[in-house]
Amino acid sequence: MANDTLEGNRRLGAIPRQPASHTGLISAVEGTLADFLAPQIAALDAIDPSLGGFGRTARDLVMAGGKRLRPTFAYWGWRGVARPGTPSEPLLPALGALELMHTFALVHDDLMDDSDTRRGRPTAHRIFGARHGARFGTSAAVLVGDLCLIWADQLLARTPLPPATLLEVRSRYDRMRIEAVAGQYLDVLGETDPESWSVERALLVARHKTASYTVQWPLDFGLALAEVEDAEVAEAYQVYGIAVGEAFQLRDDLLGVFGDPTITGKPAGDDLSTGKPTALLMLAQRMATPAQRDELATAEIGRKAQIIAETGAPARVEEMIRARVTEGLTALASAPIDSEARSELIELATVATQRPA
Amino acid sequence: MANDTLEGNRRLGAIPRQPASHTGLISAVEGTLADFLAPQIAALDAIDPSLGGFGRTARDLVMAGGKRLRPTFAYWGWRGVARPGTPSEPLLPALGALELMHTFALVHDDLMDDSDTRRGRPTAHRIFGARHGARFGTSAAVLVGDLCLIWADQLLARTPLPPATLLEVRSRYDRMRIEAVAGQYLDVLGETDPESWSVERALLVARHKTASYTVQWPLDFGLALAEVEDAEVAEAYQVYGIAVGEAFQLRDDLLGVFGDPTITGKPAGDDLSTGKPTALLMLAQRMATPAQRDELATAEIGRKAQIIAETGAPARVEEMIRARVTEGLTALASAPIDSEARSELIELATVATQRPA
Repeated sequence: MANDTLEGNRRLGAIPRQPASHTGLISAVEGTLADFLAPQIAALDAIDPSLGGFGRTARDLVMAGGKRLRPTFAYWGWRGVARPGTPSEPLLPALGALELMHTFALVHDDLMDDSDTRRGRPTAHRIFGARHGARFGTSAAVLVGDLCLIWADQLLARTPLPPATLLEVRSRYDRMRIEAVAGQYLDVLGETDPESWSVERALLVARHKTASYTVQWPLDFGLALAEVEDAEVAEAYQVYGIAVGEAFQLRDDLLGVFGDPTITGKPAGDDLSTGKPTALLMLAQRMATPAQRDELATAEIGRKAQIIAETGAPARVEEMIRARVTEGLTALASAPIDSEARSELIELATVATQRPA
Repeated sequence: MANDTLEGNRRLGAIPRQPASHTGLISAVEGTLADFLAPQIAALDAIDPSLGGFGRTARDLVMAGGKRLRPTFAYWGWRGVARPGTPSEPLLPALGALELMHTFALVHDDLMDDSDTRRGRPTAHRIFGARHGARFGTSAAVLVGDLCLIWADQLLARTPLPPATLLEVRSRYDRMRIEAVAGQYLDVLGETDPESWSVERALLVARHKTASYTVQWPLDFGLALAEVEDAEVAEAYQVYGIAVGEAFQLRDDLLGVFGDPTITGKPAGDDLSTGKPTALLMLAQRMATPAQRDELATAEIGRKAQIIAETGAPARVEEMIRARVTEGLTALASAPIDSEARSELIELATVATQRPA
């Protein structure tokens, strides 16, 4: 365990902390993750030191930061309906599981997109590729993703809630995972044939790949954790989740073309270099003059971004984001939920859709 | 659902059948899989027809046959200790989950090994690669594997057993999955640097990648399904599982070099072309004369197989297989288990280690 230098490993055996604030929530989830991962890595180390190294790389990817949006939405989804004073500590393994599952999705997505960096650091297939070549990088990244997905299940199983509740939580978790995989399949399919893609199809991908997986299902997962069945809240969460989630993806589209690489941690014009048929690009093609459309097909990346701006598509996407955020907040306004949760979800809708990275 | 031509889909809604024989067991598991998969695929189809196609390809890979060893070992592990007359029908979702999980492992393994065929048919990345190119083939194969792993969880959750039992079953299932991923990591690591590998390390891979995942944990999974805690049986299953599982992998090593491609469904000398440092190859290198060793490093595949045979390594591997089968059967002989289960497990040890494919 010589390389286990991350702070979390000193917390081995510690009791996860009760979140007292947004930062408190995130550090409690991260503490839970670190406490869970340390013995898993020790067990891998015991089989073979190279397996310990494999596990440590996986752990570093999980602990490397990120917005932790899914645990955050799940937490506030829970808080919206949980009886006041209910301790949130028992939720932490379930919240941590969402983040492990997200690392699985990111590692496999980055491999498919052949991305070099994530959160300003090398992606999994690049880390392993640097050790033993590109082919090994691909294989090891597939396996790191698989490992994180299984770890997520193991951590979820430790949530100290009644078995019947856990089964319900797990069933929503499974639907979330299926949607994430399905959305990603549509995403890679779109890249094989961008000509046949459309604004509508790009929004379908946004809905299944991002909206349901980032916002809608985490909120629903929170509802299940609270052991509350309330059709009115479920409906409000769903409308909010899809609307804010789509807006989140539309912001991502804008950042993928116009984002500042020093803030996003990804190369400039990342989406343009992979040719991803985002709603933004589809809209730009639709709004372009014939001359702009021709130039868009052949120009280098910097010029492509300029043409997209000239078509007016970014302003239209900003409008779509605003309309969706409004729709989400309206649904939330009348929902019978805790007022602090409502304020936080209103705040999150803005944070997630106006972010610079 | 126009392309859903597999027999299983006509069984939609059918009650899984009680297995009455080995063939009966396998068809009951396959019926359960088909019944589970049909509505999953319909749900994907409802999002987008291309997703339905993705799901159907995944289903065809699951239903394409294979030895169904893991459900079989789990079933007999259960039968060894279950009270006589206990219906086996409730086990079927759990047994089917093992097979879905195995499809996940095969699809990802074939991608890492860049294998062209499996069970005589194109591998997942080749199927998808033929549709939209190699890059898409890789991405879609990663996603098909992911989908099967999640489907496995969903099917496992439908096992109609008390939640506490299911939690115990799932905890063993998780350990099995972790070992499968860890073993596969060691396997791909070995291929990056075959010079540093050894007979001992190859056996470590065999133990974690194959023995524990194919025999040991499925038997243990069966024990948990029976809701029986019997340390003597658990110990016997473990000794048998590891010994027979290693023998299974050693047979695989021999088939990978000397197998008949028309029976194995894989190209001749598959392991030699990928340079996989199997126990057989490591042993051949150790037993080779200096001249043989030099030739082994550079010869073409057909000649390599000849040299390996000349070193005497295959005969030594046959001895290792025999010793392990004997060890496994000895452990089983005195275990307090049902006599029919004992006979079947004795038979399976032979089938699994003397097979031609």
